[in-house]
Amino acid sequence: MQAEIIAVGTEILLGQITDTNSPLVARLLATLDIDTYYQTVVGDNRERLLSALEIASERADLIITIGGLGPTPDDLTKQTVSEFVKQTLIEDQPALDKILDYHQRTQRPMSINNRLQALYMADGQPLLNETGFAVGCFYQNPNGPDVLLLPGPPWELEPMLVKHALPVLAENYQQSGVLFSRVLRFYGIGESRLVTQLANLIENQTNPTVAPYAKAHEVTLRITAQAKTTDAAIKLIDEMEADIMAEVGDYFYGYGDDFSLEECVGDLLINSNLHITAAESMTSGLFQSTLGKVAGISQVFDGGLVTYSPATKIALLDVDPEVIEEHGVVSEATACAMAVGAQKKLGADIAISFTGVASGELEGHEAGTVWIGIAFEDDPVQAFLYHFGTERQKNRERAVMAGLDLIRRTILGLPSVEYK
Amino acid sequence: MQAEIIAVGTEILLGQITDTNSPLVARLLATLDIDTYYQTVVGDNRERLLSALEIASERADLIITIGGLGPTPDDLTKQTVSEFVKQTLIEDQPALDKILDYHQRTQRPMSINNRLQALYMADGQPLLNETGFAVGCFYQNPNGPDVLLLPGPPWELEPMLVKHALPVLAENYQQSGVLFSRVLRFYGIGESRLVTQLANLIENQTNPTVAPYAKAHEVTLRITAQAKTTDAAIKLIDEMEADIMAEVGDYFYGYGDDFSLEECVGDLLINSNLHITAAESMTSGLFQSTLGKVAGISQVFDGGLVTYSPATKIALLDVDPEVIEEHGVVSEATACAMAVGAQKKLGADIAISFTGVASGELEGHEAGTVWIGIAFEDDPVQAFLYHFGTERQKNRERAVMAGLDLIRRTILGLPSVEYK
Repeated sequence: MQAEIIAVGTEILLGQITDTNSPLVARLLATLDIDTYYQTVVGDNRERLLSALEIASERADLIITIGGLGPTPDDLTKQTVSEFVKQTLIEDQPALDKILDYHQRTQRPMSINNRLQALYMADGQPLLNETGFAVGCFYQNPNGPDVLLLPGPPWELEPMLVKHALPVLAENYQQSGVLFSRVLRFYGIGESRLVTQLANLIENQTNPTVAPYAKAHEVTLRITAQAKTTDAAIKLIDEMEADIMAEVGDYFYGYGDDFSLEECVGDLLINSNLHITAAESMTSGLFQSTLGKVAGISQVFDGGLVTYSPATKIALLDVDPEVIEEHGVVSEATACAMAVGAQKKLGADIAISFTGVASGELEGHEAGTVWIGIAFEDDPVQAFLYHFGTERQKNRERAVMAGLDLIRRTILGLPSVEYK
Repeated sequence: MQAEIIAVGTEILLGQITDTNSPLVARLLATLDIDTYYQTVVGDNRERLLSALEIASERADLIITIGGLGPTPDDLTKQTVSEFVKQTLIEDQPALDKILDYHQRTQRPMSINNRLQALYMADGQPLLNETGFAVGCFYQNPNGPDVLLLPGPPWELEPMLVKHALPVLAENYQQSGVLFSRVLRFYGIGESRLVTQLANLIENQTNPTVAPYAKAHEVTLRITAQAKTTDAAIKLIDEMEADIMAEVGDYFYGYGDDFSLEECVGDLLINSNLHITAAESMTSGLFQSTLGKVAGISQVFDGGLVTYSPATKIALLDVDPEVIEEHGVVSEATACAMAVGAQKKLGADIAISFTGVASGELEGHEAGTVWIGIAFEDDPVQAFLYHFGTERQKNRERAVMAGLDLIRRTILGLPSVEYK
């Protein structure tokens, strides 16, 4: 079962607005096992829309148009699609009543265009618009692909799609069974390396499928299974997950589309009631501001320090000037002294420190050289050396991610791994 | 001149990510008077991409593909497009050097896929990727539509497009004369308000054109003029700029695609040799990490404090406990005391403080309520009240921007304005 989405609107084509409808429709179609191989954006133009419909009808079983159902002269999707599938348009009485009632109640003048919003294809099925006036429509076409007409405003599209269109599609197309997916999140391994290591699993599977996706400084894998029941789909996913974990489990940190490494660490800290602080040099507050994104973090995060210059490391963190003199700022000894200083100053259970070179060169170290120190409860303080790249801001971001991962591994008692 | 945009990526097709690249490309093409009548999204699939290219080549003079230039086996745009236009691929030496250097320096194993990112079409022109590894390409095709290959990650696409691809397109397609553009940056006024205030200037002009573009928490205007000579183009732009400034000059802070409010403030601080520090509560280090993006900031930024809890405001900033007791944490008095405390502690010329409600409710204040304090040299300390929105992270970002603008206006002696 293949669908094609055609988003109609000159304002999308000009880039004046970003089309967030098509991704939503695609995601929800996937839950019914309906694939979309193409999405098209076309302006409010009869000829070009007809041409897009022509092309789509050769490659899809279902064409979904979005937009162009409104009351302005620009809006011509319904008229053009009905011309294309040779359907006459008739009025949906409840939709018309709603339009008439609104204009009467607000004493606004009503034009013929307002009334057009109540039209739907004679052999089709009108779809209720709970948050607007333009009625949608699903038409099962005996002579070509079926068509589904949805409104353009996102606040109209989503309720119509979820409450009215999807049930109609499910009734018409659902084979049997369910589609289920799970997202695994990894830190410390690049996308290309992960894909290489899982090549067999990714390439040879059709059910479940495994799709990698690189996010900023991390990678996710989406496992999607199709089965008769949810339990059976979950079993397929569990098996695939076990195979994946056997290969790259060392880098796994959590599940879900909306999870992040800072949330993972924030949750760990909050659930263990471990108070944290930080002493930041080259990250300049980025670790603390990243942690600050986590709702509820104030339970375990009281504050910390940004010590950019050597003098502030001494003044605010009580780092021994001789340590800096002897080892330099970018050193294991300074990272350790910073972590210990912050832990004492804030009375925290965990203190993390960052000192290194964001860009340029410092003390003979090249950009990307970073020492991260960690003082955890009464354990001996430790520091780890990292080599990142040449870009200032990316180096700072990568240092923060590495710091978060170090805290996670420390709290969970996991061994450190080589980033690759 | 008609272009067609083909965004390649299964994750877009599945709705896992929203395509923000195509709107940006369409907007920037419009500044060169290049129309887009169709945009297509297609998955990482050779056959379907070939079919999309076939269709596009019948209706466009220029095909722009976005995405699929990365190092995974999924990424096959370059290979497929070069097959379509019958071009062999050759290695771009600078791009290859960058890839080799990165892997050597970070001691990461390099796969053949990494190397593929340096390939471009033999008779085409490689386009530098300043923020990634995959080289772009423009190929002027004697036997069909020209093609332009752009990378998918937005942080790679935008710099390549603006700095390298658009000049090449302008050179190839521009009728005669020169095309020159200048970007003006504004903070403190929303896009819709700016557009309304400049409606006459934006709508009635064809040369120069004025294109607004909303970035995170700020707005830019790109003025583009076409003329016989650069001097003549600059004159047209100067006149338009004067008209714009007469309307919204109060919100203007600088020029250029790559400039930012933090760089503007960083430059001001460095050039005036004013040392700065910060005491951050609800922003949790975000101000300092934003300032830390500015290269060379260490000349005037020694460090600062993150004081999330009331206890750390007292312990680290010497805020009088009675001030917090009497006025609350979210108050003018506490903001002032934090700024004064930080200024003394760090011996800085300027200290800025942030205290407020990022999300939820605190001391009866709703989310988005923020006091920003500023202590400048020996001037009396001041604090200003802001009301932002309901989203945690956005409130923190907006507070930081407002703080930067406050510093800019304080150093330059500009009056404060009403944000709108």
